[in-house]
Amino acid sequence: MSWIYEKNFEVRDYECDLQGIVNNAVYQNYLEHTRNSFLKEKGPDLKALHDQGIDAVVARIEIDYKFPLRASDNFFCRLAVKRDGELKLVFNQEIVLKDSQKLCARAKVVVVCLENGKVSMPKVIIDSFSEFLE
Amino acid sequence: MSWIYEKNFEVRDYECDLQGIVNNAVYQNYLEHTRNSFLKEKGPDLKALHDQGIDAVVARIEIDYKFPLRASDNFFCRLAVKRDGELKLVFNQEIVLKDSQKLCARAKVVVVCLENGKVSMPKVIIDSFSEFLE
Amino acid sequence: MSWIYEKNFEVRDYECDLQGIVNNAVYQNYLEHTRNSFLKEKGPDLKALHDQGIDAVVARIEIDYKFPLRASDNFFCRLAVKRDGELKLVFNQEIVLKDSQKLCARAKVVVVCLENGKVSMPKVIIDSFSEFLE
Amino acid sequence: MSWIYEKNFEVRDYECDLQGIVNNAVYQNYLEHTRNSFLKEKGPDLKALHDQGIDAVVARIEIDYKFPLRASDNFFCRLAVKRDGELKLVFNQEIVLKDSQKLCARAKVVVVCLENGKVSMPKVIIDSFSEFLE
Repeated sequence: MSWIYEKNFEVRDYECDLQGIVNNAVYQNYLEHTRNSFLKEKGPDLKALHDQGIDAVVARIEIDYKFPLRASDNFFCRLAVKRDGELKLVFNQEIVLKDSQKLCARAKVVVVCLENGKVSMPKVIIDSFSEFLE
Repeated sequence: MSWIYEKNFEVRDYECDLQGIVNNAVYQNYLEHTRNSFLKEKGPDLKALHDQGIDAVVARIEIDYKFPLRASDNFFCRLAVKRDGELKLVFNQEIVLKDSQKLCARAKVVVVCLENGKVSMPKVIIDSFSEFLE
Repeated sequence: MSWIYEKNFEVRDYECDLQGIVNNAVYQNYLEHTRNSFLKEKGPDLKALHDQGIDAVVARIEIDYKFPLRASDNFFCRLAVKRDGELKLVFNQEIVLKDSQKLCARAKVVVVCLENGKVSMPKVIIDSFSEFLE
Repeated sequence: MSWIYEKNFEVRDYECDLQGIVNNAVYQNYLEHTRNSFLKEKGPDLKALHDQGIDAVVARIEIDYKFPLRASDNFFCRLAVKRDGELKLVFNQEIVLKDSQKLCARAKVVVVCLENGKVSMPKVIIDSFSEFLE
C-alpha cells in the first residue's frame, strides 16, 4: 500500500471503556477524522461539500482489530484511496502505535457521494483528489 | 421542585470509562436528551426549530455529581423549567437511580434561543411551553 | 437468519452529526449495546466476565450502511449468533426502523474471548449461550 | 488567573451536532482531557492512581458557554488549580480559539479524591502538584 496521508493522535482517557482499552466504536472516530482531515487539506472539506448539496457517506466499513489501544497511547492513522468503479471511493486505513510501529487496526472504508440525494461522483471530488487516486 | 417531565434510561457499557463508572460528560448527554425529548413531546423539537432559524443553546450548566452511575444501572432523569428574565429558560434536572431512588446528579441548565444569530425569546417557545413554565 | 434477540432504541440528537444523520461510529455503539444486553440477559455480563479475567473483544466488524438514521427515529437492533471454529463467535446484526421496517444497517461482528490475555473459548460462555448458538 | 498548563486541540467533525456546532457535552471531554494530560505530565496519571486505589472524581462542574466551537476550529484549553479546604481541588479552565483568542467557554471544576471509597487528599497528589497549587 502506498500511504498518502498520515495523522497523529493521542488516546484520551474518556475514549477507553470498562475493559481499560479504547472502545471499538472510537476507532471509527479516528478513521473518520483522518479521512476528513485529508479531505480538508487537499480539497473541499465535508462541511463545504454539505453546503453545496454533496454528502460523502460511508456505504461499508470493515475493521480488523489487531491490538488494543490503551490510555495515553500515541499512534497515527494513515490512508490510501482509490476509485472502485464509477461511483465508489475506497479508503484503506491503518492505525499504528507510534513507538513500536505495532499495527492496532486495519480498515477498508467504502465511501459514496450523494448529490441532492442521488449517488454520484461529483466533479469537485475528482478534480480535487485525482492526483491521490491510485 | 415540581417535576414536569421524566425520562427512563439504562447505562450503556460504552458510556463507562476506565474507572468503571459513567464518564462525567455522558451525564450531559442524558440531561440534553431529556430536555430535547421534553421539547419534542410538548412542542417543536430542536431540529424543527433549527430549520426555522431558531437554535436553543446552553449558555451555562452546573452539575453536582452525587453518586456514580455504573454499567447497566437503570435510572431516570427529570426536569422542571422556569423563565429567568426576558431571555432565559432555566431547567432544573435530576438523575436518580430507579430502584433505590438515590440521587446521582443534580443540574441547573440555562438555555437561550438564538433567532438568526440574535438572542431572543421566540413566540413559538412561549406558546408551546407556557403551561410548563413555573 | 433466525433472530434471537432484539432491542429497541430511539436516536438521541447528540448522536447526529453535521450532516444531520447519525454518525457512522454511533451505529457501533448501538450494535455493541445490543450484544451486551443480550449477554447480560442470558448469562454473565461483560463486567462480570471482565472481573473473572475474561474479556470478550471484537476481532473484526463489517457494517453495511443502507439507509441513514435521523434525529428521533425509533428503531430496533436484532441479532443472531453462531460459533465459527473453536475460538470465534459470529454475531449477525441488523438495525431496522420501527415503523417502516426499513433496513438501515447490516453488520457481522466477530468476537473472541481473551482469558488472562490468551484467546480461548471459556466454559462459562459455552454453558451460558449454547442454546442460542446456531 | 495565572494559567499553568495549556493543551492544543482541533475540533473533529464528529464532535459537532445537528446545529453545526460542537455539542455541549464534548466541551467536558476537552476539559477532562486537558486536566488528565496535566496530571500525566506532572505526576501520576489517572490510570496509575486508579491502580493504587485512588480515583480523582469530579464533584461539581460549572461551564459558561460563550462562543460556539465549529468544525475544524483550532483552539487551546488552559488551566489553573488551587486547593479549596482540606479535601477539594478546584480547576479553573478556559477554552480559547487559537487565531482570534476568542473565549469560547469558561469552567470551574471541583475534584475530590476517593481512596478506597473514602474522600481524602492523598499524599501522592499533594507531593506531585504542590508547586502548582496557588
